[in-house]
Amino acid sequence: MKKVSDVRCFGGRQIRFEHDAKTLNCVMQFSVYLPEAATQQPVPAVYFLSGLTCTDENFATKAGAQRVANELGIALIMPDTSPRGDDVPDDPEAAYDFGKGAGFYVNATQTPWSQHYQMYDYIVSELPELVERELPITDRRAIAGHSMGGHGALVIGLRNPQRYRSISAFSPITHPTDCPWGEKAFSNYLGDDRQEWAQYDAVELIKAHGQPLPIRVDQGLADGFLDEQLKPQALQAAIAEVNGDAEIHLHEGYDHSYYFISSFIEAQLRFHAQYL
Amino acid sequence: MKKVSDVRCFGGRQIRFEHDAKTLNCVMQFSVYLPEAATQQPVPAVYFLSGLTCTDENFATKAGAQRVANELGIALIMPDTSPRGDDVPDDPEAAYDFGKGAGFYVNATQTPWSQHYQMYDYIVSELPELVERELPITDRRAIAGHSMGGHGALVIGLRNPQRYRSISAFSPITHPTDCPWGEKAFSNYLGDDRQEWAQYDAVELIKAHGQPLPIRVDQGLADGFLDEQLKPQALQAAIAEVNGDAEIHLHEGYDHSYYFISSFIEAQLRFHAQYL
Repeated sequence: MKKVSDVRCFGGRQIRFEHDAKTLNCVMQFSVYLPEAATQQPVPAVYFLSGLTCTDENFATKAGAQRVANELGIALIMPDTSPRGDDVPDDPEAAYDFGKGAGFYVNATQTPWSQHYQMYDYIVSELPELVERELPITDRRAIAGHSMGGHGALVIGLRNPQRYRSISAFSPITHPTDCPWGEKAFSNYLGDDRQEWAQYDAVELIKAHGQPLPIRVDQGLADGFLDEQLKPQALQAAIAEVNGDAEIHLHEGYDHSYYFISSFIEAQLRFHAQYL
Repeated sequence: MKKVSDVRCFGGRQIRFEHDAKTLNCVMQFSVYLPEAATQQPVPAVYFLSGLTCTDENFATKAGAQRVANELGIALIMPDTSPRGDDVPDDPEAAYDFGKGAGFYVNATQTPWSQHYQMYDYIVSELPELVERELPITDRRAIAGHSMGGHGALVIGLRNPQRYRSISAFSPITHPTDCPWGEKAFSNYLGDDRQEWAQYDAVELIKAHGQPLPIRVDQGLADGFLDEQLKPQALQAAIAEVNGDAEIHLHEGYDHSYYFISSFIEAQLRFHAQYL
């Protein structure tokens, strides 16, 4: 693990690292925010998974999360959204919604994707093992994300309740097996057997296994992807079906951008802080 | 003036406009943040001038200023950093420190720059007249900026104390007549007569006319441009020479980036709020 940059931010440190990711079979970069409290003792962490087209830097530079993370004494772990590098296959048409920048947090089973696109294992296992070994970060974890990363946070949290304390998401793709983004990605990464897809679908996971962790979702009602891709109603219905009690906040006038995320990241971090 | 986008952010509205700028002889975009208070009555404004390579969007997306602006009931006006468009001449080598993205907030006198590069008049007159006529924004103004924009804020505030209540700057180019960035830009925009340059140099203006307005400067001590380009000591010396009392805050470990700006923008906005 090599340090690429390290600057002060809100009293703590904003750091970028590079490492050989074994699960992804390529060199990856990721960003970490360490609050000032981490100079005294190891701190818990919120993992934030970004959306389509993003790298580790979008959330780091645009969400304004460091202020509250420093106040709460929580680290932020910001991974990239797909494997990277010239050896990694990409969408043949370089579309924004598949391939690089669009790993969808699954373990691909299909050629040529399976050699690198193992983002599920990378986020669940390799990255936490690395940062908890090398940095003052504990195994008290929460998971959050935006859009494609909101899908990732829900799926990873729901499938690993022993590894996370709480889940949150901005504008998540709640039901990828029933929307164009998810159908394109899953048919390529996972093949045509839709039975295989359900393990990566938050709505299906909740229907099958209930709601094992506290969940908070924020969704803007002026979000251009709301009806076709995100479908918060499907998530609400699944949670109702299992008598869950997720907090789903719908916000009039807010869109899909970081202007929305920055407005409510404080609320999501305070939500996680209750459990961390 | 045409609206390009309009989304909610921290309870207010983040809006982007496009207009024919008469002083610049081209179409310009700029961003405005209107706090919720502007739905009740016109509000004062902080004009934020960005640095080299920036557009109106860098500060809007990365500084996290909207939260405190909404709390204080202050609008943010975020102009671009140069004239734009295919008709506007650019640095022949497309360097980042001259031409487009690098207007240096001067009125150019030299061919071919003088036809479009009139950023001083645009910021001092045309833009305030426009937003105060079209939006719920008063003539209670403060001016702020970063790097090249910190230079712009200091120069514009110092030369127009009747138009602004207070000045602030992050990492400003304090003494452009004595640093490589300023010497390159001024010799091209203003010609070789260094007498002409002094009207755009904060250090020279203070030495000649004193400190007419409250000033706050924040400067990171891990800023890679500190000694060669920014020279906060020159500003400190000029203020001391005229018995001024500017607040100059030096911050250990902070660099030239928006991680620095986001960490202290709250302090700068609260500084301006005292006078607005």
